[in-house]
Amino acid sequence: MAAAGTTRTERPDGKIHGAPQALSGDAPVRQASLREHNLGLVLRHVGAAPRPPSRADIAAATGLTRATVSALVDDLITGRLLTEVDPAPRTGAGRPAAGLVLAANGPAGLGLEINVDYLAACVVDLAGTVRHRAVHRADQRPHSPAEVLTGLARLAATARSAAATQNLALAGTALAVPGLVTAAGLVRLAPNLGWRDVDVPGILGDHPALCGTPLTVDNEANLAALGELHAGPPGPANFLYISGEIGIGAGIVLHGTLFRGARGWSGELGHVPVHPDGPACRCGSRGCLEQYAGQEAILRAAGLAGHGLSPDAAIADLVERADSGDPATTAALTGAATALGVAVAGVVNLLDVDTVVLGGVYAPLAAWLRPTVEEQLRRRVLTAGWSPVTVRPSVLGGDAAVVGAAGSVVRAVRDHPARWLAAIT
Amino acid sequence: MAAAGTTRTERPDGKIHGAPQALSGDAPVRQASLREHNLGLVLRHVGAAPRPPSRADIAAATGLTRATVSALVDDLITGRLLTEVDPAPRTGAGRPAAGLVLAANGPAGLGLEINVDYLAACVVDLAGTVRHRAVHRADQRPHSPAEVLTGLARLAATARSAAATQNLALAGTALAVPGLVTAAGLVRLAPNLGWRDVDVPGILGDHPALCGTPLTVDNEANLAALGELHAGPPGPANFLYISGEIGIGAGIVLHGTLFRGARGWSGELGHVPVHPDGPACRCGSRGCLEQYAGQEAILRAAGLAGHGLSPDAAIADLVERADSGDPATTAALTGAATALGVAVAGVVNLLDVDTVVLGGVYAPLAAWLRPTVEEQLRRRVLTAGWSPVTVRPSVLGGDAAVVGAAGSVVRAVRDHPARWLAAIT
Repeated sequence: MAAAGTTRTERPDGKIHGAPQALSGDAPVRQASLREHNLGLVLRHVGAAPRPPSRADIAAATGLTRATVSALVDDLITGRLLTEVDPAPRTGAGRPAAGLVLAANGPAGLGLEINVDYLAACVVDLAGTVRHRAVHRADQRPHSPAEVLTGLARLAATARSAAATQNLALAGTALAVPGLVTAAGLVRLAPNLGWRDVDVPGILGDHPALCGTPLTVDNEANLAALGELHAGPPGPANFLYISGEIGIGAGIVLHGTLFRGARGWSGELGHVPVHPDGPACRCGSRGCLEQYAGQEAILRAAGLAGHGLSPDAAIADLVERADSGDPATTAALTGAATALGVAVAGVVNLLDVDTVVLGGVYAPLAAWLRPTVEEQLRRRVLTAGWSPVTVRPSVLGGDAAVVGAAGSVVRAVRDHPARWLAAIT
Repeated sequence: MAAAGTTRTERPDGKIHGAPQALSGDAPVRQASLREHNLGLVLRHVGAAPRPPSRADIAAATGLTRATVSALVDDLITGRLLTEVDPAPRTGAGRPAAGLVLAANGPAGLGLEINVDYLAACVVDLAGTVRHRAVHRADQRPHSPAEVLTGLARLAATARSAAATQNLALAGTALAVPGLVTAAGLVRLAPNLGWRDVDVPGILGDHPALCGTPLTVDNEANLAALGELHAGPPGPANFLYISGEIGIGAGIVLHGTLFRGARGWSGELGHVPVHPDGPACRCGSRGCLEQYAGQEAILRAAGLAGHGLSPDAAIADLVERADSGDPATTAALTGAATALGVAVAGVVNLLDVDTVVLGGVYAPLAAWLRPTVEEQLRRRVLTAGWSPVTVRPSVLGGDAAVVGAAGSVVRAVRDHPARWLAAIT
């Protein structure tokens, strides 16, 4: 899937994945790039530390001198990136040193999401805590892109006020869209919204709720996968994040990095053929996964389509019926999970990911989907006998995309604190 | 797919993809690692240069001093990695300087391949030129692993003699196997050979034709994909290499690097489900791609199975019949290409690779397979309208795996010349 903007970062898991460009290879090391590097080093160390470290702890862990660490920490405190906290009582001798934590009233990220049947906004602070969230549930398909974006800007304005009230400074906005997005933020195609070549930054960029800070537009499954990556344990994660909505998207994390594809269009799991001669899909092909396991396909199979319920209420109804063992619902979920398992088995045979994350509406349905998906993987994955695959619901649930979007903004600040410091001075 | 040994390298395309570990990140730079780095820098520069560069050219291009370059070049010449050639006549003033090329009588790689219906060996020199090749065509399935490996060792002994006659020094051996291989060279599973947990280095390691230099065992599609990567233009390639044999494997190159998966089992394209309720596969599943597009499935569909022809002769016969427009053959190839196109459309929707390389027996059949594969991609890939995918035969043809195997050995020498120099002194 595609992607955009200046605030994006791809390996923001709090670990140091190699030094910046100027510190590796054959380029000379400038003094300024050394400071940039070291600011990031200190900030990442504090972000990843299990307890608030002191300046001395940071010096010991990074190999920098205490004087250098102190100067860097002072800059980071002035820039609202770090805060000093009272030290834990010590039993040993000497005055205990103040500990450092990521600032709770510093820069924050505004995450926005457009989906087929809802709009969402949230604010996430530097430590990754969600400080504000709002969802507006309504089918967006009857509206023009401009109308949808006007509705979204209203949510953004409310979120911006909430951030200001909490003394947070928005460092940027990331918008999740269920479609193919170019690096410039153009939505090339969002089949389930009926959008084609919608210039989101062009329409939204001048809106008072969004101007003044960078705007990034990205595919929702990609942002959700990044959210999932950062919410999980650090390490070289290899997983397929599946965003089950009216459309089905995927974010592919390989060796701890989101893989976007050669042109930025990776992750179109919903259009992987399951039965090549199956029913026609909105994309023009036949038998795509979406036709069997998309939210509307599931509701239709369960006999819950056209009841006039909102999609959200319909999913809640579906969960209730599944809970009570309703045969039509159980059969619908088994059918969807079988198709999902067939498509995912192809992915695992091809990519050998070790984890499959069920996101979007699949998260609340995971208890019923998982056994059948796992059964298909056992049957169809060549290495299933000795290299099993974990299938689990998303940690972030249905909020993964919008939280991942906001998180991508603060991750960029954490990865490149010097840019933030330069921007605010 | 999995992989093994000490000589493996993954980004050996003659370009510098970041400095060695000790020159990046937070580690101190030792003098020895600086020399290692610079030896590689000089060797890669010569390997990638369009014309034989002089010492002065190398100094200018790398930023190293002329004295340093001269010392490094002397070491590389002594170590049989570089050779001086006569300079081109110059029109300007001054004595023309000697040019440098990769040594044609220095280290070489021995590539071996076990496939279901043949064994192969080849020797590739430092410049990538194939200096010896041999193929022994015979169905390997009636034989035990030990018998197969004995036959392979005979080919290896002949190749070793051929290398010695040409004044080449074998730096190591890489063996391509159509199966799942662990990092230690254990063949966990090669379904079409009927192999399970075969300890290839244990059986082969002490053989006189192979002992004394490192032995690497890897999946054949992975080695073929690496061969294809190095045979192609430099740059951040994103392609799916498909190895069509009795089994169907794939090597996935993403951003110029072979992607092996979380556990080393990537690339099992042959077991991607095409028709989930289709015919039973040897793997225990149903409707796998191999059942529609594997070599034996094609021959069966064309009415050429059981004619007592060797697989090789059968493919030659198939090509001849396709050339003459034989309807059964055309239908068989269209059927195989349709299934292949369905599976590959899923891959492209998921990974957004921009190129699909048809290797193995698909290379000579590409003229008949390609139009149908491309038609399926146009129908089934969501972004096909504006981001087309190139489908082309392998540059290395049926030899890709064995040439890629030998090439992987010399690439390791080119990437880490200091190791080679240390090993021979």
